[in-house]
Amino acid sequence: MMTITLLGGGNLANHLTNVLLNSNGCDLSQIYNRSIEKIRHFEKQTKITNNLDDLRDTDIYILCIKDIAIKEVSAKIAHKEGLIVHTSGALAMEVLQNNLRKGVFYPLQTFSKEKNLSFDNIPICIEAARPKDLEILHSLATLLSKKVYNINSLQRKKIHLAAVFVNNFVNHLYSIGKDICDTNNIPFEILQPLIEETAKKMNTLAPFEAQTGPARRKDYKTIEIHKSECSEEIETIYTVLTDAIIKSKSHGN
Amino acid sequence: MMTITLLGGGNLANHLTNVLLNSNGCDLSQIYNRSIEKIRHFEKQTKITNNLDDLRDTDIYILCIKDIAIKEVSAKIAHKEGLIVHTSGALAMEVLQNNLRKGVFYPLQTFSKEKNLSFDNIPICIEAARPKDLEILHSLATLLSKKVYNINSLQRKKIHLAAVFVNNFVNHLYSIGKDICDTNNIPFEILQPLIEETAKKMNTLAPFEAQTGPARRKDYKTIEIHKSECSEEIETIYTVLTDAIIKSKSHGN
Repeated sequence: MMTITLLGGGNLANHLTNVLLNSNGCDLSQIYNRSIEKIRHFEKQTKITNNLDDLRDTDIYILCIKDIAIKEVSAKIAHKEGLIVHTSGALAMEVLQNNLRKGVFYPLQTFSKEKNLSFDNIPICIEAARPKDLEILHSLATLLSKKVYNINSLQRKKIHLAAVFVNNFVNHLYSIGKDICDTNNIPFEILQPLIEETAKKMNTLAPFEAQTGPARRKDYKTIEIHKSECSEEIETIYTVLTDAIIKSKSHGN
Repeated sequence: MMTITLLGGGNLANHLTNVLLNSNGCDLSQIYNRSIEKIRHFEKQTKITNNLDDLRDTDIYILCIKDIAIKEVSAKIAHKEGLIVHTSGALAMEVLQNNLRKGVFYPLQTFSKEKNLSFDNIPICIEAARPKDLEILHSLATLLSKKVYNINSLQRKKIHLAAVFVNNFVNHLYSIGKDICDTNNIPFEILQPLIEETAKKMNTLAPFEAQTGPARRKDYKTIEIHKSECSEEIETIYTVLTDAIIKSKSHGN
């Protein structure tokens, strides 16, 4: 059975630890974190350590740590024989400081401490320097998820950029929606079905086809009224996105 | 039993007609549309007409037509004794040209021809000039949906503005995500679970609390790298939204 060491104690590390501990096809042998307190709650289920020199020999080492620490930590464990992977969307595989057996295991999802998630439907993007290691990562990924993709470092960087648009920026637009509701004594929950349907629609319609609203139909009268209702802060966003929709053309649909 | 005339043949009109025809508590007595062909498929289920002079007397007239036509059409049926309502998010109740019995019946959702929707969870915003008519609208709305809200014209205008942010603008960000995927031979479906989870999260977390990403953690290095990867077209959007997130503060959480 595949043996695994997981390094990290943040949100993703916690979710991944839970799912690995509950998976039958692999053995999460040890968890490392700089601060032992953050992984103390796993003590009864596996070995924990805050000392890199105490790492056991396992088949895979999964670095679930901040981007900024990946280079340094991978250098410190570069002598290990197992496959070393990071879980970052932004960094190339080559940031790993060991020689041959390196790869990436990137679950493409937003993780909050407060919310449990099934890994079943989370796309896992894998990459490895050696074909045999890609096979190993594929076996591991399919244990956890139905959606496994071979994605190279350049593509992953682009996915990370796209994720900023469809997750971080979208979330900020939700935030503006909430502010407008709060200011006018409207419960924000009233927007929730619209928010979810807009997201679900992407399963069946390309976003360009799904586009509606005053900008799409070039309804300049409504656009002017809306702008006059916006605070200065959000008027810039209204204008930039409205102009972009007006200018946009379907690409290859 | 409440009798209803529905005027219109577009997306919302079609969805509403279907749900009214299938509801036990009311009787959709007639549908009007300027072009009879667009409502011909309902001919076996109720009366149809393209002549406003042929409208029967019913308890309620629902104008499910373009904003620009509401004033004119409501003037033409202003002599009717029943309650006249429009279904527009953007227009005040007062745009209706009859005297006393007027109101608004606004289902807050995005409707596509291609996709069937259950009305159960669609928020319906109601307003009426007279308390008794508000009661009538409340009875009708609760026949169709579990979520009924009393919303005045000013609030509805603000909801419509908020909807542009959380629906139209969000959809354009999805569109940018798809373009980035297409350009880099990445299947767009890879972003779907992230898109849906970001939306679902709003059920349990306020958007300000849910915010993650380079802008939220003021990771200027990643922000610069991302900007260099953006086409000119989307760099403006990246910059405006990143700046907004950096500046944003929690309001009343």
